[in-house]
Amino acid sequence: MADALKANAVVGQSGGPTGVINASLVGVIEEAAKHPDIQNIYGAVHAVAGMVKDEFIDLGRVSRETLDIVAASPSSAIGTSRDKPDAEYCVKILDIFKKRNIRYFFYIGGNDSANTAHILNTMADEAGFDIRAFHVPKTVDNDLLVTDHCPGFGTAAKFEACALMGDDLDNRALPGVKIDVIMGRHAGFLTAAAALGRVRDDDGPHLLYFPERPVSMDKFAADVDAVVGKLGRCVVAVSEGMCDTDGVTWAKKLAENAETDAHGNIQLSGTGALADFLAGQIKEKLKVKRVRADTFGYLQRSFAGLQSDVDAREARRCGQEAVKMAMQHDNGSVAMKRTGNGDNYAVEFFRTDLCNVAEKTKSMPDEFINADGNGVTDAFVEYAMPLVGGLPKTEYLGGRPRV
Amino acid sequence: MADALKANAVVGQSGGPTGVINASLVGVIEEAAKHPDIQNIYGAVHAVAGMVKDEFIDLGRVSRETLDIVAASPSSAIGTSRDKPDAEYCVKILDIFKKRNIRYFFYIGGNDSANTAHILNTMADEAGFDIRAFHVPKTVDNDLLVTDHCPGFGTAAKFEACALMGDDLDNRALPGVKIDVIMGRHAGFLTAAAALGRVRDDDGPHLLYFPERPVSMDKFAADVDAVVGKLGRCVVAVSEGMCDTDGVTWAKKLAENAETDAHGNIQLSGTGALADFLAGQIKEKLKVKRVRADTFGYLQRSFAGLQSDVDAREARRCGQEAVKMAMQHDNGSVAMKRTGNGDNYAVEFFRTDLCNVAEKTKSMPDEFINADGNGVTDAFVEYAMPLVGGLPKTEYLGGRPRV
Repeated sequence: MADALKANAVVGQSGGPTGVINASLVGVIEEAAKHPDIQNIYGAVHAVAGMVKDEFIDLGRVSRETLDIVAASPSSAIGTSRDKPDAEYCVKILDIFKKRNIRYFFYIGGNDSANTAHILNTMADEAGFDIRAFHVPKTVDNDLLVTDHCPGFGTAAKFEACALMGDDLDNRALPGVKIDVIMGRHAGFLTAAAALGRVRDDDGPHLLYFPERPVSMDKFAADVDAVVGKLGRCVVAVSEGMCDTDGVTWAKKLAENAETDAHGNIQLSGTGALADFLAGQIKEKLKVKRVRADTFGYLQRSFAGLQSDVDAREARRCGQEAVKMAMQHDNGSVAMKRTGNGDNYAVEFFRTDLCNVAEKTKSMPDEFINADGNGVTDAFVEYAMPLVGGLPKTEYLGGRPRV
Repeated sequence: MADALKANAVVGQSGGPTGVINASLVGVIEEAAKHPDIQNIYGAVHAVAGMVKDEFIDLGRVSRETLDIVAASPSSAIGTSRDKPDAEYCVKILDIFKKRNIRYFFYIGGNDSANTAHILNTMADEAGFDIRAFHVPKTVDNDLLVTDHCPGFGTAAKFEACALMGDDLDNRALPGVKIDVIMGRHAGFLTAAAALGRVRDDDGPHLLYFPERPVSMDKFAADVDAVVGKLGRCVVAVSEGMCDTDGVTWAKKLAENAETDAHGNIQLSGTGALADFLAGQIKEKLKVKRVRADTFGYLQRSFAGLQSDVDAREARRCGQEAVKMAMQHDNGSVAMKRTGNGDNYAVEFFRTDLCNVAEKTKSMPDEFINADGNGVTDAFVEYAMPLVGGLPKTEYLGGRPRV
């Protein structure tokens, strides 16, 4: 238990935006206002990039009404950055902190952000400058250690589920092969979430591919062929970080291929390339007439008006808990423990050491992936369903008995 | 005024699905149930393809509860088809109609579907077989003549607006150039709808390109350069049917280029290719570091849980009105006339001749496009805003004064 510190606080949002990272920001702001030891709560504009340039806004002046709108808005409301601060960068930040008497540091982000908090805290310690450094988890990829799940995942998972529910109905109406490439970097959680909207036996996605289960192009095509043979159509969800059996990502193989084969203005490393490449593979190997591919892109993390209410609530709580913890501890990362599931879904919030989260990545557990490596298990659905906060109902009539 | 016909009815859904084509289907079914002259209401599975193969389901047996879920579901609940029936095809359909005593024909679709209804009606007349053929408008492209706007557009417009609101906030948080390729074939309405969520002076999309205003790649790059110079970032919405100044679509130029330059498995005519190509052009011409591109794909027309309530209500009414009209007229297409705007927005439904809608395409009126050909006017916003049925509020704090 640390002594109270009467000082200013700074909060930053780091890495890729999510649908609820602003809810965490608002959680930090509103909780900070309750603690007299925290004098001003500054927002670092564009995260560490703003800290190093002394670019701050006064978040204590933002009205309650505006904060509620911020909490419901996608993206990072005070700007973000992908900078990874080195020692020199951190010295500059600590100089600014000293100048402004900033001793509370709240950083909302993924494992890199936890690492930044860890480094800053260690350097401040070494300099004899007492700070409280707290990491607030966020990532659509759901790939942080310790916590049961990450704020941001539930909302992105809801997007994937709604997208695939619509896409599967579309594919029933105009049958063929449909391939959707989904975010998640080296973790398959978000791609797996594409299966959450399935209710009918033949609902898609019929096949799902995760970075945790490398697959050859031949196996991929054979899987699709089998589904088309059975249903006359096939909807596939593919992780952007999908690997071949030699461990090289499909996207990388494609990019290398493109650099060798094409020239001029044609870009193959862009966002749509993997989906188009896979569609081409299926067209070539299977001679299926109608093959379509989509890459969901940034819509997955920043779509206005779409939030999982469970996710938004938890994200806000994570921000609040970080401030509460900072009143008693030197540093840490906020994590969630699931204390009930299904209809009794509930979480508790707890502190873990920064080094437990910093720079580490969680993969999908084996129990969430089916034996064939191309689908999810009931265990995954039980894990992820409470996080999306409900899904719409849909109906398809075309399968009814003919008269 | 035609005499009453005691017979069966068929309804079909044709062409690309939308978010509310099922609302129109339900409108037809529930209104048909009110008219004793309509005995059974059959659903043609996969539109004309089902009619010609005698594949029907009995829609009169679907429960009220299920119908309400159908009306809220995206895609075409009884399947659709892109078949364009020729004379021989129509003869087969009429034979099936005779066999089943089908004399009411309701076809939900775009201008091709209006044409199918027109052809069937003409051929039935010539054969002395009295049918009532009605077209119910639907298209996300909003490109049908006569009607003020098309069911399906408002929901897709809401998707674009929410997508660009999120994307613009994302681009504020991580500045760069972002290009979004949007559906709409040869009409720019849907791309224009991407501007509906703008509220702040510097909100994106900052540039919009429509098929109605051909643009050279140099002008495109110069426009982006000017916005980047002013704001340090730029969000661009581009119609998939965008043309160069020689009248050739950008997508076609790219595809030709790809066929010449690349070989093997690389597909450039897939959905992501145009967006990636444009991103490549900007990277090359402007030396902007961060350039991203997304192609929204099928999410735009089939995303579960996203409807404009105005659009869903009007789509359902269009289905109902078609049945009412069929009680009194031989044929026609349902159209909407706007009788009030803004807070007093309202429409009236009326019948127009099939030939007024069949095979014809509406472009965006000049008054909706700005003088530079790269943005929308207030007149467009006044026209389209009532159709999306409300948009979420968002806030960005990063532009506030530094402290």
